[in-house]
Amino acid sequence: MDIRNPYLMFLGDAPDDLAAKVADGVSKWRPDWCKGQLRLDGCKADLGLPDMDLEQGREAGCQTLVVGVANRGGKIPPNWRETLEKALAMGYDIASGLHNKLADIDSLAALAKEHGRQLFDVRHPTQDFDVAKGSKRRGKRLLTVGTDCSVGKMFTSLAIHKTMQERGVKSSFRATGQTGIFIAGGGVSVDAVIADFISGATEWLCPENDADHWDVVEGQGSLFHASFAGVSLGLLHGSQPDALVLCHEPTRSHLRGLPDFPVPDIKECIRVNEMMARMVNPDARVIGVSVNTSKVEKAKQDSVLEEIERETGLPTVDAFRQGAGRLVDAL
Amino acid sequence: MDIRNPYLMFLGDAPDDLAAKVADGVSKWRPDWCKGQLRLDGCKADLGLPDMDLEQGREAGCQTLVVGVANRGGKIPPNWRETLEKALAMGYDIASGLHNKLADIDSLAALAKEHGRQLFDVRHPTQDFDVAKGSKRRGKRLLTVGTDCSVGKMFTSLAIHKTMQERGVKSSFRATGQTGIFIAGGGVSVDAVIADFISGATEWLCPENDADHWDVVEGQGSLFHASFAGVSLGLLHGSQPDALVLCHEPTRSHLRGLPDFPVPDIKECIRVNEMMARMVNPDARVIGVSVNTSKVEKAKQDSVLEEIERETGLPTVDAFRQGAGRLVDAL
Repeated sequence: MDIRNPYLMFLGDAPDDLAAKVADGVSKWRPDWCKGQLRLDGCKADLGLPDMDLEQGREAGCQTLVVGVANRGGKIPPNWRETLEKALAMGYDIASGLHNKLADIDSLAALAKEHGRQLFDVRHPTQDFDVAKGSKRRGKRLLTVGTDCSVGKMFTSLAIHKTMQERGVKSSFRATGQTGIFIAGGGVSVDAVIADFISGATEWLCPENDADHWDVVEGQGSLFHASFAGVSLGLLHGSQPDALVLCHEPTRSHLRGLPDFPVPDIKECIRVNEMMARMVNPDARVIGVSVNTSKVEKAKQDSVLEEIERETGLPTVDAFRQGAGRLVDAL
Repeated sequence: MDIRNPYLMFLGDAPDDLAAKVADGVSKWRPDWCKGQLRLDGCKADLGLPDMDLEQGREAGCQTLVVGVANRGGKIPPNWRETLEKALAMGYDIASGLHNKLADIDSLAALAKEHGRQLFDVRHPTQDFDVAKGSKRRGKRLLTVGTDCSVGKMFTSLAIHKTMQERGVKSSFRATGQTGIFIAGGGVSVDAVIADFISGATEWLCPENDADHWDVVEGQGSLFHASFAGVSLGLLHGSQPDALVLCHEPTRSHLRGLPDFPVPDIKECIRVNEMMARMVNPDARVIGVSVNTSKVEKAKQDSVLEEIERETGLPTVDAFRQGAGRLVDAL
């Protein structure tokens, strides 16, 4: 998967900004790649990018139409389809984060073939992976892990990668979810891989590299989350991390989607992640904590961070407000 | 998936008994369901069942032709195909453990449709699963776990289930791999499920039940196995086990397929499995150890069991030689 940029961001008729959450993440992290937004009648989302139609997008150099928006009821509506068909005829590739595959729509598959264009269904890995080998490989790897799902693992990974780039440290961001894949221009939706190949897909994603190169791997789920822990462990083993950063959201009353499950204790979560990671890399260590304090009242944000730092003895930052400098320092 | 029995066991032109390992397991555990074997010219495998052609199989009451044999090079050879096509026309369903799907072969798909017959590709789950909910459900569950892959988890599960049946304990064997699925007549190949749904598929497999009913769930892989630990953890969380039985093969010098990975210490393996299981069921406990001593020299087999029993303080048996009585006693 190698998604060409720049992108024209397709928002369809998204009813609100939340429906365009993926597109929003991409445009924030790749302002230089996102030249414009294409909105259909009735669209209520706005990325703050210049509005463009397909022609204007091509004139601005756009190579790929990125569908970073949720569709209602799982169907691709006729007014979207018309735009997508026209885009292929005009030379765009299309990259989509929808559950439904573009490649399953006959007219799009035929037009892509006719015009030599590519359809990327980023939620649906198409390559065949090997079973993980577990052998030690050259290069350094950092993985973000979490006390829960949706606690800022992608954001933290990107912030760490950005800091490394600014400091001239050789690094790559390795995406494991749809938004990350659009931002990186490639990657694997590991939660959509066949179970036997979770770790193998992760090994493929962050292969051997220069000894001083860091792969910053976007984590998924949590070892403590009863729905997704298998994915999290497969990622942990496949990425063979030297360093882990624990991500946390301090206002949750229970694990996301699991009302009966309390959020695990941070120190316990560090201990379990290190233990499981050391099965594949004895040097694995949690080097810092990244806390999303956006839902904590302003006056208390700093004290939340200080308390976790005192409790864990690890650099603790809100990567959004403070950047990832102290996490990279800790490596 | 509800595979009708009795079975006619198709061995094709298997070059040796090892190639018919799956069929062998099925005929050992379901002697009453396996009425005969169908062998093509050149077949070197033998289950010790009466040789039958398709006609004789139907006369003996067979409902399903079970392809429990490995094929060379991943292709279904023409001489197999002819037999499979004829079987559908004669009223057999076909159940296959091949990597290649029967349903992808146009002639078989068409004949199955024409004759109202079913094709079961047991390695390839076809139903849609939900994401795991993690909620406590009625009924008891036992899961076999392992220090490694291929250490006797299916065998131990079946032996425990058999003992329960003999003692009048309400129980079901829940199959998670191809041989087990043929033996149970249904189940899910959990390692072939999309990663996000490992635990959800397991919840589906062993749902709420009578309070005094035991689901005996066939384990897969090992939490310590760098290739497959994600599957093992998903199964552990989805099965929400009350009881675990640790399976072990004492002659391994390293984990299967991973020359750099030592076999984990048994007590450590018990500790980690209990810890991860207690995230979903605080009462989860390893209640015994099942050791496959078939590769240990005869004079030492008993002392190997005694040593592990002393070390762990848990009933330790070779379920093949001694049955699972002491494991069921421990519940």
